[in-house]
Amino acid sequence: MLYVVGIGPGGLDMMTYQARAAIEEADVIVGYKTYTHLVKALVGDKPVLKTGMCKEIERCQAALEMAQSGKTVALISSGDSGIYGMAGLILEMVTKHSWHVEVKVIPGMTASIAAGSVLGAPLMHDFCHISLSDLLTPWEVIEKRIIVAAEADFVTCFYNPRSRGREGHLKQAFELMSPYKDPQTPVGIVKEAGRRKEAKWITTFGDMDFELVDMRTLVIVGNQSTYVEQGLMVTPRGYQL
Amino acid sequence: MLYVVGIGPGGLDMMTYQARAAIEEADVIVGYKTYTHLVKALVGDKPVLKTGMCKEIERCQAALEMAQSGKTVALISSGDSGIYGMAGLILEMVTKHSWHVEVKVIPGMTASIAAGSVLGAPLMHDFCHISLSDLLTPWEVIEKRIIVAAEADFVTCFYNPRSRGREGHLKQAFELMSPYKDPQTPVGIVKEAGRRKEAKWITTFGDMDFELVDMRTLVIVGNQSTYVEQGLMVTPRGYQL
Ligand SMILES: C[S@@+](CC[C@H](N)C(=O)[O-])C[C@H]1O[C@@H](n2cnc3c(N)ncnc32)[C@H](O)[C@@H]1O
Ligand SMILES: C[S@@+](CC[C@H](N)C(=O)[O-])C[C@H]1O[C@@H](n2cnc3c(N)ncnc32)[C@H](O)[C@@H]1O
Repeated sequence: MLYVVGIGPGGLDMMTYQARAAIEEADVIVGYKTYTHLVKALVGDKPVLKTGMCKEIERCQAALEMAQSGKTVALISSGDSGIYGMAGLILEMVTKHSWHVEVKVIPGMTASIAAGSVLGAPLMHDFCHISLSDLLTPWEVIEKRIIVAAEADFVTCFYNPRSRGREGHLKQAFELMSPYKDPQTPVGIVKEAGRRKEAKWITTFGDMDFELVDMRTLVIVGNQSTYVEQGLMVTPRGYQL
Repeated sequence: MLYVVGIGPGGLDMMTYQARAAIEEADVIVGYKTYTHLVKALVGDKPVLKTGMCKEIERCQAALEMAQSGKTVALISSGDSGIYGMAGLILEMVTKHSWHVEVKVIPGMTASIAAGSVLGAPLMHDFCHISLSDLLTPWEVIEKRIIVAAEADFVTCFYNPRSRGREGHLKQAFELMSPYKDPQTPVGIVKEAGRRKEAKWITTFGDMDFELVDMRTLVIVGNQSTYVEQGLMVTPRGYQL
């Protein structure tokens, strides 16, 4: 049995019962080291196969092999396992090649939801997720999505907003959005949501400081009605109060 | 203290530890009756103020009053409290009027994530949430979002896809998307994700049966790469396998 477990964005607090049970039941844990660290209290002295970043295919392969040999394996992913996480790759490998492994996807809370709760309630109206990583997606496709999201006034959550070799992507994204965005539009930035080093900033589209953002950060750009008051970023649903 | 608690889409399994702790700590629970029912094991014999649907403002008012009078209140919302949930309304009331209440938003897993895990891994690439309820949003705004989401090839999750008086909205949404969508595009339908009566269907854009959908259903329309195999709906991230 292979559980692909979304452990939520941070520590145990934002993990579900189902995720905890899967980790407790597993014979062996597989995951990128930052994430195995976050759940170390649950793992106890079980064997842990840690792998580095960008080794996704090897990690999945190892997890599938151990599960096929009869072990119960928990492959852990931060946030939700099905959102830019490990569930997709595992299911691709299972549906395209002949593995004899039972797979169960255990969902988790994704980073945008945790970041939203830290900022207030910015995701109360229609929103989208856009990953700014062009490792696996052509930049033109990403550009198109950025533009239409701004044009149709979606609240927009940027995943993978900045990383080595892609320092300029977030700034480019803001340039693409700028014809449609009032400079006063609130922008929320949350680094390491739900973790010990959590930090947040609320700024505006016009005053955005791209230097605050790193690869462990989520950026939420508000829609036309989003406002900030008492330090809270709120997107109204439309009730008449 | 007022906790605005996202209890996740279903029963206790998909609830976080933090949500459980807030409900256990509370003196009184407030919520729409279906949701208070889902967490009844945690509530024990605490007083529960149940309210009907469409009584959101009254429900928030009651929760704020009790919290202001010194009680610890848990106002519960299904899924995430900040996604078409109670957190937005509470924060609007708190930022616009002079309540003296400390509010803490406790995030939860939203329905699209649970539905995604039931279907496979359809949310592995950029996606958006669109609510088809025009009670609080002009239909023209919703239409625009539906069209651009299809045009820019976002995986699209429809919330509030159908309800009394709005039976035709989902069909209209599909008509608006049809110039951009191959009839073979996979569509996943999940009713009551994570609950006892959970049911799912995987179909195609061209063969969609709108009659399957009710107000407790989430509909996920794939992007150009989404495929179905072995009963699983998968949106590839783009790895070369
Ligand atoms: C490869 S994606 C993984 C997303 C994850 N599966 C999820 O559902 O949250 C990595 C990106 O997610 C975001 N992210 C993940 N965890 C985060 C956290 N705790 N705080 C802020 N952003 C986070 C960052 O934008 C990061 O670059
Ligand atoms: C007012 S919205 C509330 C959304 C909730 N706050 C969340 O984050 O999931 C209600 C809509 O959410 C969707 N929904 C909520 N719970 C669901 C579940 N367990 N299964 C399927 N859809 C659900 C349905 O589309 C429903 O019409």
